[in-house]
Amino acid sequence: MRKGSFCYPYPRPALTTDCVIFGFDEGELKVLLIKRTTDPFRGKWALPGGFVNMDETTEACAKRILIKETGLKGVFIEQLFTLSDLNRDPRERIISVAYYALLKISDYVVTGGEDAAIAQWHGISTVPKLAFDHNKIVKVALDRLRGKVRYVPIGFELLSEKFTLTQLQHLYEAILGASLDKRNFRKKFLKMKLLKPLTEKQEGVAHKAARFHIFDKKKYAELTSKGFNFEI
Amino acid sequence: MRKGSFCYPYPRPALTTDCVIFGFDEGELKVLLIKRTTDPFRGKWALPGGFVNMDETTEACAKRILIKETGLKGVFIEQLFTLSDLNRDPRERIISVAYYALLKISDYVVTGGEDAAIAQWHGISTVPKLAFDHNKIVKVALDRLRGKVRYVPIGFELLSEKFTLTQLQHLYEAILGASLDKRNFRKKFLKMKLLKPLTEKQEGVAHKAARFHIFDKKKYAELTSKGFNFEI
Repeated sequence: MRKGSFCYPYPRPALTTDCVIFGFDEGELKVLLIKRTTDPFRGKWALPGGFVNMDETTEACAKRILIKETGLKGVFIEQLFTLSDLNRDPRERIISVAYYALLKISDYVVTGGEDAAIAQWHGISTVPKLAFDHNKIVKVALDRLRGKVRYVPIGFELLSEKFTLTQLQHLYEAILGASLDKRNFRKKFLKMKLLKPLTEKQEGVAHKAARFHIFDKKKYAELTSKGFNFEI
Repeated sequence: MRKGSFCYPYPRPALTTDCVIFGFDEGELKVLLIKRTTDPFRGKWALPGGFVNMDETTEACAKRILIKETGLKGVFIEQLFTLSDLNRDPRERIISVAYYALLKISDYVVTGGEDAAIAQWHGISTVPKLAFDHNKIVKVALDRLRGKVRYVPIGFELLSEKFTLTQLQHLYEAILGASLDKRNFRKKFLKMKLLKPLTEKQEGVAHKAARFHIFDKKKYAELTSKGFNFEI
Protein backbone atom coordinates (compact mmCIF):
# COMPACT_ATOMS: atom_id res chain seq x y z
CA MET A 1 0.00 0.00 0.00
CA ARG A 2 1.20 3.55 -0.82
CA LYS A 3 2.60 5.40 2.17
CA GLY A 4 1.87 9.07 2.72
CA SER A 5 -0.40 11.36 4.63
CA PHE A 6 -4.11 10.74 4.35
CA CYS A 7 -6.25 13.48 5.85
CA TYR A 8 -9.99 13.62 6.55
CA PRO A 9 -12.28 16.32 7.99
CA TYR A 10 -13.35 13.94 10.79
CA PRO A 11 -11.25 11.39 12.70
CA ARG A 12 -11.56 7.77 11.56
CA PRO A 13 -10.99 4.54 13.43
CA ALA A 14 -8.54 2.04 11.95
CA LEU A 15 -10.01 -1.21 10.63
CA THR A 16 -8.68 -4.75 11.09
CA THR A 17 -9.88 -8.34 10.72
CA ASP A 18 -9.29 -11.30 13.04
CA CYS A 19 -9.86 -14.99 12.39
CA VAL A 20 -10.97 -17.74 14.77
CA ILE A 21 -10.00 -20.96 12.99
CA PHE A 22 -11.33 -24.03 14.75
CA GLY A 23 -9.78 -27.38 13.89
CA PHE A 24 -10.82 -30.91 14.76
CA ASP A 25 -8.21 -33.57 15.31
CA GLU A 26 -7.98 -36.83 17.19
CA GLY A 27 -11.18 -36.23 19.09
CA GLU A 28 -10.33 -32.68 20.20
CA LEU A 29 -11.51 -29.23 19.16
CA LYS A 30 -8.62 -26.79 18.74
CA VAL A 31 -8.11 -23.15 17.78
CA LEU A 32 -5.28 -21.71 15.68
CA LEU A 33 -3.15 -19.07 17.43
CA ILE A 34 -0.07 -17.10 16.44
CA LYS A 35 2.69 -15.72 18.64
CA ARG A 36 3.03 -11.96 18.11
CA THR A 37 6.44 -10.56 17.17
CA THR A 38 5.44 -6.87 17.30
CA ASP A 39 4.06 -4.48 19.92
CA PRO A 40 1.66 -4.30 21.57
CA PHE A 41 1.46 -7.73 23.21
CA ARG A 42 4.81 -8.79 21.68
CA GLY A 43 5.43 -12.45 22.53
CA LYS A 44 1.77 -13.09 23.42
CA TRP A 45 -0.57 -15.54 21.72
CA ALA A 46 -3.25 -13.93 19.55
CA LEU A 47 -5.67 -14.64 16.73
CA PRO A 48 -4.27 -14.18 13.21
CA GLY A 49 -5.33 -10.71 12.07
CA GLY A 50 -4.26 -7.35 10.68
CA PHE A 51 -5.17 -4.12 8.91
CA VAL A 52 -7.60 -3.90 5.97
CA ASN A 53 -6.28 -2.43 2.71
CA MET A 54 -8.38 0.10 0.78
CA ASP A 55 -8.64 -2.20 -2.24
CA GLU A 56 -9.92 -5.33 -0.50
CA THR A 57 -13.08 -6.40 1.30
CA THR A 58 -12.81 -7.42 4.95
CA GLU A 59 -13.23 -11.05 3.89
CA ALA A 60 -10.38 -10.79 1.39
CA CYS A 61 -8.25 -9.16 4.09
CA ALA A 62 -8.97 -11.94 6.57
CA LYS A 63 -7.97 -14.59 4.00
CA ARG A 64 -4.81 -12.70 2.96
CA ILE A 65 -3.61 -12.35 6.55
CA LEU A 66 -4.44 -15.96 7.34
CA ILE A 67 -2.11 -17.05 4.55
CA LYS A 68 0.56 -14.53 5.58
CA GLU A 69 0.58 -15.45 9.26
CA THR A 70 -0.32 -19.14 9.29
CA GLY A 71 0.09 -20.48 5.75
CA LEU A 72 -3.56 -21.61 5.69
CA LYS A 73 -5.01 -21.42 2.18
CA GLY A 74 -8.44 -22.03 0.71
CA VAL A 75 -10.32 -21.92 4.00
CA PHE A 76 -14.06 -21.17 3.87
CA ILE A 77 -14.53 -18.41 6.44
CA GLU A 78 -17.77 -16.88 7.69
CA GLN A 79 -18.29 -13.45 9.20
CA LEU A 80 -18.78 -13.64 12.95
CA PHE A 81 -19.09 -10.20 14.56
CA THR A 82 -17.65 -6.68 14.45
CA LEU A 83 -15.97 -5.44 17.63
CA SER A 84 -16.03 -1.73 18.34
CA ASP A 85 -15.45 -1.26 22.09
CA LEU A 86 -13.68 2.05 22.64
CA ASN A 87 -10.57 0.75 24.41
CA ARG A 88 -10.14 -2.66 22.84
CA ASP A 89 -6.70 -1.77 21.43
CA PRO A 90 -4.08 0.16 23.45
CA ARG A 91 -2.72 1.89 20.32
CA GLU A 92 -5.83 3.78 19.24
CA ARG A 93 -9.45 3.28 18.20
CA ILE A 94 -9.46 0.12 16.11
CA ILE A 95 -12.59 -1.66 14.87
CA SER A 96 -12.20 -5.33 14.00
CA VAL A 97 -14.36 -7.56 11.84
CA ALA A 98 -14.03 -11.14 13.11
CA TYR A 99 -14.40 -14.26 10.94
CA TYR A 100 -14.51 -17.92 11.86
CA ALA A 101 -14.09 -21.32 10.26
CA LEU A 102 -14.12 -24.99 11.17
CA LEU A 103 -11.74 -27.39 9.43
CA LYS A 104 -10.12 -30.77 9.67
CA ILE A 105 -6.58 -30.20 10.91
CA SER A 106 -5.04 -33.08 8.97
CA ASP A 107 -6.22 -31.53 5.67
CA TYR A 108 -4.04 -28.43 6.13
CA VAL A 109 -0.45 -27.40 6.75
CA VAL A 110 0.17 -24.59 9.22
CA THR A 111 3.35 -22.51 9.33
CA GLY A 112 4.45 -19.26 11.01
CA GLY A 113 5.03 -16.17 8.88
CA GLU A 114 5.45 -12.41 8.89
CA ASP A 115 4.44 -10.76 12.20
CA ALA A 116 3.94 -14.23 13.65
CA ALA A 117 6.87 -16.27 14.94
CA ILE A 118 4.78 -19.38 15.36
CA ALA A 119 1.31 -20.51 14.32
CA GLN A 120 0.03 -23.38 16.44
CA TRP A 121 -3.14 -25.30 17.30
CA HIS A 122 -4.26 -25.05 20.94
CA GLY A 123 -6.87 -27.27 22.61
CA ILE A 124 -10.03 -25.24 23.19
CA SER A 125 -10.01 -26.01 26.91
CA THR A 126 -6.40 -24.80 27.34
CA VAL A 127 -6.42 -21.52 25.38
CA PRO A 128 -4.00 -19.13 27.17
CA LYS A 129 -4.67 -15.48 27.98
CA LEU A 130 -4.60 -13.82 24.56
CA ALA A 131 -3.66 -10.35 23.30
CA PHE A 132 -6.34 -7.63 22.99
CA ASP A 133 -9.94 -8.88 23.44
CA HIS A 134 -9.16 -12.09 21.57
CA ASN A 135 -10.36 -14.41 24.35
CA LYS A 136 -13.75 -12.75 24.02
CA ILE A 137 -13.72 -13.23 20.23
CA VAL A 138 -12.91 -16.94 20.70
CA LYS A 139 -15.84 -17.25 23.11
CA VAL A 140 -18.29 -15.58 20.71
CA ALA A 141 -17.05 -17.85 17.91
CA LEU A 142 -17.39 -20.96 20.05
CA ASP A 143 -20.95 -20.04 21.03
CA ARG A 144 -21.81 -19.46 17.37
CA LEU A 145 -20.24 -22.77 16.33
CA ARG A 146 -22.07 -24.67 19.09
CA GLY A 147 -25.35 -23.12 18.07
CA LYS A 148 -24.74 -23.94 14.44
CA VAL A 149 -23.78 -27.62 14.72
CA ARG A 150 -27.17 -28.28 16.30
CA TYR A 151 -29.10 -27.30 13.20
CA VAL A 152 -26.67 -27.60 10.27
CA PRO A 153 -24.81 -30.87 9.61
CA ILE A 154 -21.38 -29.21 9.33
CA GLY A 155 -19.55 -31.79 11.37
CA PHE A 156 -19.29 -34.45 8.67
CA GLU A 157 -16.53 -32.62 6.81
CA LEU A 158 -14.35 -33.25 9.86
CA LEU A 159 -14.70 -37.02 9.91
CA SER A 160 -13.41 -39.60 7.48
CA GLU A 161 -15.96 -40.44 4.78
CA LYS A 162 -16.78 -43.64 6.66
CA PHE A 163 -17.28 -43.27 10.40
CA THR A 164 -18.78 -45.16 13.31
CA LEU A 165 -21.62 -43.72 15.40
CA THR A 166 -19.21 -43.50 18.32
CA GLN A 167 -16.80 -41.37 16.28
CA LEU A 168 -19.72 -39.14 15.27
CA GLN A 169 -20.79 -38.75 18.88
CA HIS A 170 -17.23 -37.90 19.96
CA LEU A 171 -17.13 -35.18 17.31
CA TYR A 172 -20.30 -33.60 18.66
CA GLU A 173 -19.09 -33.93 22.24
CA ALA A 174 -15.78 -32.24 21.37
CA ILE A 175 -17.52 -29.31 19.67
CA LEU A 176 -20.28 -28.93 22.26
CA GLY A 177 -17.87 -29.46 25.17
CA ALA A 178 -20.37 -31.77 26.85
CA SER A 179 -21.14 -35.48 27.16
CA LEU A 180 -24.18 -36.66 25.24
CA ASP A 181 -26.43 -39.55 26.11
CA LYS A 182 -25.51 -42.37 23.71
CA ARG A 183 -29.02 -43.73 23.26
CA ASN A 184 -30.64 -40.32 22.71
CA PHE A 185 -27.92 -39.20 20.31
CA ARG A 186 -28.30 -42.32 18.15
CA LYS A 187 -32.08 -42.15 18.23
CA LYS A 188 -32.11 -38.53 17.05
CA PHE A 189 -29.63 -39.18 14.26
CA LEU A 190 -31.18 -42.38 12.98
CA LYS A 191 -34.65 -40.77 13.02
CA MET A 192 -33.42 -38.14 10.55
CA LYS A 193 -32.43 -40.93 8.13
CA LEU A 194 -29.32 -39.06 6.99
CA LEU A 195 -26.85 -41.83 7.73
CA LYS A 196 -26.33 -44.82 5.44
CA PRO A 197 -25.06 -47.91 7.26
CA LEU A 198 -22.40 -49.90 5.37
CA THR A 199 -21.77 -53.62 5.67
CA GLU A 200 -18.13 -52.83 6.37
CA LYS A 201 -16.99 -52.75 9.98
CA GLN A 202 -13.98 -51.50 11.91
CA GLU A 203 -10.95 -53.79 11.80
CA GLY A 204 -8.25 -54.55 14.32
CA VAL A 205 -10.06 -53.08 17.31
CA ALA A 206 -9.91 -54.63 20.76
CA HIS A 207 -13.63 -54.14 21.44
CA LYS A 208 -16.61 -55.31 19.38
CA ALA A 209 -16.14 -54.00 15.80
CA ALA A 210 -18.60 -51.19 15.02
CA ARG A 211 -20.35 -50.70 11.72
CA PHE A 212 -19.28 -47.81 9.47
CA HIS A 213 -21.77 -45.20 8.25
CA ILE A 214 -21.67 -42.52 5.60
CA PHE A 215 -23.53 -39.20 5.56
CA ASP A 216 -26.16 -39.13 2.80
CA LYS A 217 -25.65 -35.65 1.28
CA LYS A 218 -28.19 -36.24 -1.48
CA LYS A 219 -30.87 -37.23 1.01
CA TYR A 220 -30.06 -34.18 3.13
CA ALA A 221 -30.42 -31.83 0.15
CA GLU A 222 -33.69 -33.54 -0.81
CA LEU A 223 -35.14 -33.33 2.70
CA THR A 224 -33.99 -29.73 3.19
CA SER A 225 -35.73 -28.63 0.01
CA LYS A 226 -38.94 -30.07 1.50
CA GLY A 227 -38.63 -27.97 4.65
CA PHE A 228 -36.84 -30.53 6.81
CA ASN A 229 -34.82 -29.07 9.71
CA PHE A 230 -31.67 -30.83 10.85
CA GLU A 231 -31.61 -30.83 14.62
CA ILE A 232 -29.43 -32.56 17.17
CA MET B 1 -17.56 16.13 16.96
CA ARG B 2 -14.53 18.42 16.50
CA LYS B 3 -13.91 19.46 12.90
CA GLY B 4 -10.38 19.72 11.54
CA SER B 5 -7.84 17.75 9.63
CA PHE B 6 -7.15 14.23 10.81
CA CYS B 7 -4.17 12.63 9.08
CA TYR B 8 -2.96 9.03 9.04
CA PRO B 9 0.06 7.29 7.40
CA TYR B 10 -2.32 4.92 5.57
CA PRO B 11 -5.73 5.66 4.03
CA ARG B 12 -8.77 4.67 6.09
CA PRO B 13 -12.30 3.81 5.05
CA ALA B 14 -15.15 5.75 6.65
CA LEU B 15 -17.43 3.83 9.01
CA THR B 16 -21.23 3.95 9.22
CA THR B 17 -24.07 1.93 10.71
CA ASP B 18 -27.43 1.03 9.15
CA CYS B 19 -30.56 -0.37 10.82
CA VAL B 20 -33.15 -2.78 9.48
CA ILE B 21 -36.13 -2.34 11.80
CA PHE B 22 -38.84 -4.89 11.17
CA GLY B 23 -42.29 -4.21 12.55
CA PHE B 24 -45.36 -6.38 12.80
CA ASP B 25 -48.79 -4.86 12.46
CA GLU B 26 -52.22 -6.06 11.50
CA GLY B 27 -50.94 -9.33 10.13
CA GLU B 28 -48.19 -7.81 8.00
CA LEU B 29 -44.40 -7.66 8.33
CA LYS B 30 -43.02 -4.19 7.58
CA VAL B 31 -39.66 -2.43 7.46
CA LEU B 32 -38.90 1.13 8.57
CA LEU B 33 -37.48 3.39 5.83
CA ILE B 34 -36.49 7.05 5.72
CA LYS B 35 -36.54 9.43 2.77
CA ARG B 36 -33.09 10.95 2.25
CA THR B 37 -32.76 14.75 2.16
CA THR B 38 -29.03 14.83 1.26
CA ASP B 39 -26.87 13.57 -1.58
CA PRO B 40 -26.19 10.95 -2.75
CA PHE B 41 -29.60 9.40 -3.42
CA ARG B 42 -31.41 12.57 -2.30
CA GLY B 43 -35.16 11.90 -2.25
CA LYS B 44 -34.70 8.11 -2.27
CA TRP B 45 -35.86 5.68 0.39
CA ALA B 46 -33.09 4.22 2.54
CA LEU B 47 -32.42 2.49 5.86
CA PRO B 48 -31.81 4.82 8.81
CA GLY B 49 -28.03 5.13 9.19
CA GLY B 50 -25.02 7.40 9.45
CA PHE B 51 -21.41 7.92 10.48
CA VAL B 52 -19.85 6.49 13.65
CA ASN B 53 -18.32 8.94 16.14
CA MET B 54 -14.93 8.20 17.71
CA ASP B 55 -16.41 8.09 21.21
CA GLU B 56 -19.22 5.60 20.59
CA THR B 57 -19.50 1.92 19.76
CA THR B 58 -21.20 0.94 16.50
CA GLU B 59 -24.22 -0.21 18.51
CA ALA B 60 -24.48 3.16 20.30
CA CYS B 61 -24.16 4.88 16.92
CA ALA B 62 -26.95 2.80 15.41
CA LYS B 63 -29.26 3.63 18.33
CA ARG B 64 -28.37 7.35 18.26
CA ILE B 65 -29.11 7.64 14.56
CA LEU B 66 -32.31 5.64 14.87
CA ILE B 67 -33.60 8.22 17.36
CA LYS B 68 -32.33 11.12 15.25
CA GLU B 69 -33.86 9.94 11.99
CA THR B 70 -36.98 8.07 13.07
CA GLY B 71 -37.72 8.98 16.70
CA LEU B 72 -37.53 5.29 17.72
CA LYS B 73 -36.22 4.90 21.27
CA GLY B 74 -35.37 1.93 23.46
CA VAL B 75 -35.25 -0.63 20.64
CA PHE B 76 -33.29 -3.84 21.28
CA ILE B 77 -31.06 -4.15 18.20
CA GLU B 78 -28.80 -7.03 17.22
CA GLN B 79 -25.73 -6.92 15.02
CA LEU B 80 -26.43 -8.36 11.59
CA PHE B 81 -23.45 -8.11 9.24
CA THR B 82 -20.65 -5.75 8.19
CA LEU B 83 -20.65 -4.65 4.54
CA SER B 84 -17.32 -3.85 2.92
CA ASP B 85 -17.78 -4.14 -0.84
CA LEU B 86 -15.40 -1.72 -2.56
CA ASN B 87 -17.98 0.34 -4.47
CA ARG B 88 -20.99 0.18 -2.19
CA ASP B 89 -21.03 3.97 -1.71
CA PRO B 90 -20.51 6.42 -4.62
CA ARG B 91 -18.76 8.97 -2.34
CA GLU B 92 -15.78 6.90 -1.23
CA ARG B 93 -14.86 3.69 0.56
CA ILE B 94 -17.39 3.31 3.36
CA ILE B 95 -17.77 0.23 5.57
CA SER B 96 -21.13 -0.21 7.26
CA VAL B 97 -22.07 -2.29 10.27
CA ALA B 98 -25.72 -3.31 9.93
CA TYR B 99 -28.08 -3.99 12.86
CA TYR B 100 -31.60 -5.36 12.94
CA ALA B 101 -34.59 -5.54 15.25
CA LEU B 102 -38.15 -6.84 15.32
CA LEU B 103 -40.83 -4.88 17.14
CA LYS B 104 -44.55 -4.39 17.48
CA ILE B 105 -45.42 -1.27 15.50
CA SER B 106 -48.27 -0.17 17.79
CA ASP B 107 -45.82 0.02 20.75
CA TYR B 108 -43.76 2.80 19.12
CA VAL B 109 -44.13 6.23 17.60
CA VAL B 110 -42.19 6.99 14.43
CA THR B 111 -41.34 10.50 13.21
CA GLY B 112 -39.01 11.97 10.59
CA GLY B 113 -35.97 13.95 11.71
CA GLU B 114 -32.64 15.41 10.65
CA ASP B 115 -31.35 14.10 7.28
CA ALA B 116 -34.67 12.28 6.91
CA ALA B 117 -37.76 14.07 5.63
CA ILE B 118 -40.02 11.15 6.41
CA ALA B 119 -39.74 7.91 8.34
CA GLN B 120 -42.33 5.35 7.28
CA TRP B 121 -43.21 1.67 7.56
CA HIS B 122 -43.28 -0.22 4.23
CA GLY B 123 -44.77 -3.69 3.69
CA ILE B 124 -41.95 -6.18 3.22
CA SER B 125 -43.34 -7.33 -0.12
CA THR B 126 -43.51 -3.77 -1.49
CA VAL B 127 -40.11 -2.35 -0.49
CA PRO B 128 -39.05 0.11 -3.22
CA LYS B 129 -35.59 0.32 -4.81
CA LEU B 130 -33.45 1.73 -2.00
CA ALA B 131 -30.32 3.90 -1.86
CA PHE B 132 -26.85 2.27 -1.78
CA ASP B 133 -26.90 -1.53 -1.21
CA HIS B 134 -29.78 -1.24 1.24
CA ASN B 135 -32.04 -3.71 -0.59
CA LYS B 136 -29.30 -6.28 -0.07
CA ILE B 137 -29.07 -5.45 3.64
CA VAL B 138 -32.86 -5.86 3.99
CA LYS B 139 -32.61 -9.26 2.31
CA VAL B 140 -29.81 -10.45 4.62
CA ALA B 141 -31.80 -9.24 7.64
CA LEU B 142 -34.96 -10.97 6.44
CA ASP B 143 -33.10 -14.26 5.94
CA ARG B 144 -31.61 -13.96 9.42
CA LEU B 145 -35.00 -13.19 10.96
CA ARG B 146 -36.65 -16.10 9.16
CA GLY B 147 -33.93 -18.46 10.35
CA LYS B 148 -34.22 -17.20 13.88
CA VAL B 149 -38.00 -17.42 14.37
CA ARG B 150 -37.76 -21.15 13.66
CA TYR B 151 -35.63 -21.87 16.72
CA VAL B 152 -36.21 -18.95 19.12
CA PRO B 153 -39.74 -17.98 20.25
CA ILE B 154 -39.28 -14.28 19.44
CA GLY B 155 -42.67 -13.84 17.86
CA PHE B 156 -44.72 -13.66 21.05
CA GLU B 157 -43.60 -10.12 21.83
CA LEU B 158 -45.47 -9.06 18.70
CA LEU B 159 -48.84 -10.45 19.68
CA SER B 160 -51.20 -9.36 22.41
CA GLU B 161 -50.64 -11.28 25.63
CA LYS B 162 -53.68 -13.41 24.83
CA PHE B 163 -53.87 -14.71 21.28
CA THR B 164 -55.64 -17.38 19.27
CA LEU B 165 -53.75 -20.13 17.46
CA THR B 166 -54.88 -18.59 14.18
CA GLN B 167 -53.34 -15.25 15.13
CA LEU B 168 -50.12 -17.06 16.05
CA GLN B 169 -50.07 -18.86 12.72
CA HIS B 170 -50.66 -15.61 10.82
CA LEU B 171 -47.70 -14.06 12.61
CA TYR B 172 -45.41 -16.90 11.52
CA GLU B 173 -46.79 -16.79 7.99
CA ALA B 174 -46.16 -13.02 7.78
CA ILE B 175 -42.57 -13.36 8.95
CA LEU B 176 -41.77 -16.48 6.91
CA GLY B 177 -43.57 -15.15 3.84
CA ALA B 178 -45.20 -18.53 3.30
CA SER B 179 -48.42 -20.37 4.08
CA LEU B 180 -48.16 -23.03 6.75
CA ASP B 181 -50.23 -26.15 7.10
CA LYS B 182 -52.71 -25.48 9.94
CA ARG B 183 -52.73 -28.99 11.34
CA ASN B 184 -48.92 -29.39 11.31
CA PHE B 185 -48.36 -25.96 12.79
CA ARG B 186 -50.71 -26.62 15.71
CA LYS B 187 -49.31 -30.10 16.29
CA LYS B 188 -45.73 -28.81 16.50
CA PHE B 189 -46.67 -25.99 18.84
CA LEU B 190 -48.87 -28.00 21.16
CA LYS B 191 -46.23 -30.75 21.37
CA MET B 192 -43.75 -28.23 22.81
CA LYS B 193 -46.23 -27.49 25.63
CA LEU B 194 -45.32 -23.79 25.66
CA LEU B 195 -48.85 -22.48 25.20
CA LYS B 196 -51.36 -22.25 28.04
CA PRO B 197 -54.98 -22.42 26.86
CA LEU B 198 -57.34 -20.05 28.67
CA THR B 199 -61.03 -20.60 29.23
CA GLU B 200 -61.65 -17.17 27.69
CA LYS B 201 -62.64 -17.03 24.03
CA GLN B 202 -62.80 -14.38 21.32
CA GLU B 203 -65.89 -12.18 21.44
CA GLY B 204 -67.98 -10.54 18.77
CA VAL B 205 -66.57 -12.57 15.87
CA ALA B 206 -68.71 -13.76 12.98
CA HIS B 207 -67.14 -17.25 12.87
CA LYS B 208 -66.86 -19.78 15.70
CA ALA B 209 -65.15 -18.09 18.68
CA ALA B 210 -61.59 -19.37 19.15
CA ARG B 211 -59.94 -20.00 22.49
CA PHE B 212 -57.21 -17.61 23.69
CA HIS B 213 -53.74 -18.87 24.64
CA ILE B 214 -50.81 -17.33 26.44
CA PHE B 215 -47.12 -18.12 25.98
CA ASP B 216 -45.68 -19.81 29.07
CA LYS B 217 -42.36 -17.99 29.53
CA LYS B 218 -41.54 -19.78 32.77
CA LYS B 219 -42.01 -23.17 31.16
CA TYR B 220 -39.86 -22.13 28.22
CA ALA B 221 -37.01 -21.03 30.52
CA GLU B 222 -37.35 -24.28 32.45
CA LEU B 223 -37.30 -26.47 29.34
CA THR B 224 -34.44 -24.50 27.74
CA SER B 225 -32.26 -25.00 30.81
CA LYS B 226 -32.78 -28.76 30.35
CA GLY B 227 -31.52 -28.68 26.73
CA PHE B 228 -34.88 -28.32 25.03
CA ASN B 229 -34.75 -26.77 21.55
CA PHE B 230 -37.63 -24.65 20.33
CA GLU B 231 -38.34 -25.55 16.72
CA ILE B 232 -41.14 -24.68 14.37
